[in-house]
Amino acid sequence: MTQLVNRQWRLKQRPVGLIAQGDFDLVSAPVPELADGEFLIRNVYLSLDPAMRGWLIDRPSYVPPVQIGEVMRGLAVGIVEESRNAKFTKGSAVQGLLGWQEYVVANGQGVTLLPASPLPLTANLGLFGLAGMTSYFGLLDIGQPKEGETLLVSGAAGSVGSLVGQIGKIKGLRVVGIAGSAEKCEWLVKELGFDAAVNYKDGNLRAQLKEACPNGVDVYFENVGGEILDTALSVMNNFGRVVVCGLISQYNATENVPGPYNFAMVISKRLKIQGFVAPDFGGRVKEMIGDFANWYGSGRLKYRVDIEQGLEAAPQAINKLFSGDNSGKLIVQISLAP
Amino acid sequence: MTQLVNRQWRLKQRPVGLIAQGDFDLVSAPVPELADGEFLIRNVYLSLDPAMRGWLIDRPSYVPPVQIGEVMRGLAVGIVEESRNAKFTKGSAVQGLLGWQEYVVANGQGVTLLPASPLPLTANLGLFGLAGMTSYFGLLDIGQPKEGETLLVSGAAGSVGSLVGQIGKIKGLRVVGIAGSAEKCEWLVKELGFDAAVNYKDGNLRAQLKEACPNGVDVYFENVGGEILDTALSVMNNFGRVVVCGLISQYNATENVPGPYNFAMVISKRLKIQGFVAPDFGGRVKEMIGDFANWYGSGRLKYRVDIEQGLEAAPQAINKLFSGDNSGKLIVQISLAP
Repeated sequence: MTQLVNRQWRLKQRPVGLIAQGDFDLVSAPVPELADGEFLIRNVYLSLDPAMRGWLIDRPSYVPPVQIGEVMRGLAVGIVEESRNAKFTKGSAVQGLLGWQEYVVANGQGVTLLPASPLPLTANLGLFGLAGMTSYFGLLDIGQPKEGETLLVSGAAGSVGSLVGQIGKIKGLRVVGIAGSAEKCEWLVKELGFDAAVNYKDGNLRAQLKEACPNGVDVYFENVGGEILDTALSVMNNFGRVVVCGLISQYNATENVPGPYNFAMVISKRLKIQGFVAPDFGGRVKEMIGDFANWYGSGRLKYRVDIEQGLEAAPQAINKLFSGDNSGKLIVQISLAP
Repeated sequence: MTQLVNRQWRLKQRPVGLIAQGDFDLVSAPVPELADGEFLIRNVYLSLDPAMRGWLIDRPSYVPPVQIGEVMRGLAVGIVEESRNAKFTKGSAVQGLLGWQEYVVANGQGVTLLPASPLPLTANLGLFGLAGMTSYFGLLDIGQPKEGETLLVSGAAGSVGSLVGQIGKIKGLRVVGIAGSAEKCEWLVKELGFDAAVNYKDGNLRAQLKEACPNGVDVYFENVGGEILDTALSVMNNFGRVVVCGLISQYNATENVPGPYNFAMVISKRLKIQGFVAPDFGGRVKEMIGDFANWYGSGRLKYRVDIEQGLEAAPQAINKLFSGDNSGKLIVQISLAP
């Protein structure tokens, strides 16, 4: 058999501001022979997530930063092409932090076998992946919403925000989304069943939110930060909960970013502001899959993906997350799906 | 009987920055006759608290702002001098938002009869008053400390901070205080039993905190805000709790104050930042009094007061809270104690 060549994006230098293609090197290397217990994964779909920007910064966080010269870290699903491992047999679909590359030789550590599913393989990166966990546990565990309350979601048309809002509707909340285009707002209300959606680019966000949330906001699910967070704080009810999932507006900042100017409202309104990361809930994925499969199967949960083609596209495509140009879960297709 | 004259501080204009004496008018007015059900209170001790600065700002909050022309709101203890009310008999000690004035005619609404106590009357403004409630419920209910954890307190030599730290020690925590002078730090460690205290005026607060908190900080009790909050966030442990009691560094700000620059740590460290105000726990004061009486009686809880003399002193004295010049609970004595 001809020796396989693996192409990989390796970190060349730490990005300043938005990620540039020149921050990575596209490197080709032969795929090594399999040792006993190892197997070869062909990556099919690569997940692009806002958190990845943080993984490129050299600072302590919940995961170590990607080092210069390392393959860029990233969640992906793939197919086992060859195997010398009895558990991961040829043809199995698998998932893990497989990285920005075409092939991976693994021994099973950090790799999960995907069960057979009527859903497309991409669902594992969204609905059943990080976005799903983030939405489900963030809203329900951290946000503690009660039926009849008002839920506000920023980044509402994103992969996380769109799930958060739909889960909110299933749980009996009034759901209002903040998004960045009329098309996204229409999709949220007409397709996903949000009660209202406001376009922050239309200006006067506070007046728009006051109108869309006549009873104020009890749970705010935050993906964005900056001015949107400040405005949301100003419409929170007493004893409101702010679930801090992401602060995408500041991930590419090159200077220190101040926290919310309305921070003192945490006292006057007795707010609870709480951050979380999805991997902390890794032990409880089964709860989520049970609910999601039910809700998706009965048409109560909808989901869309935005697929870019080819490993080459990754460093450019990730910036769509920060410009808001993606519509749905952003994925790069690296090779043909089975 | 000669008609009594009541002197009152009435709000003349909203302060800009620090409170100036000229922001209030000292007004004299005769004390009205008592109607049936009413009684006359002679104020003895007036409590000065940081939150009062917020009551002077014209904005929605947990209590309405003091209006121009109104007597300045303030917690006080007093003695019933005359009574046409069967419950509040002559000679009773009472407490309530009696205001910056010498006399009050009340009908019982908002006025609490104080039980006989071996403690001085001032204890009701501190230990058993707002400072006590703030410390007790803020630390135990909002902070949820667990034995063996590290508690960091800012404004540690203040009326609230000094109680928070002592309650922390009673609950088996490592307790570290932040204060603004060597004298205060010495008092915290030698008199109150704090494990360590750092003087933020010595500079390099982060290095001082790293040394004083070798295992990081699990609960941070915040009275100050600004740079001290930012530095504290940088030494928090994962899943730490930030109890936001006060942000005294910004109460006199004349421009918008940014929130913490380290706000993004709420995600990477999965922090919970929660605000509260003591009156929310008004229904549970008995729990606190039981514990405090025990702890004070057995010498485990110490307390000091800083008493200024005369109603005239109030508008100037309150600024000691913001300069950090008070040592202990700040009180104005208006008339002779019984």
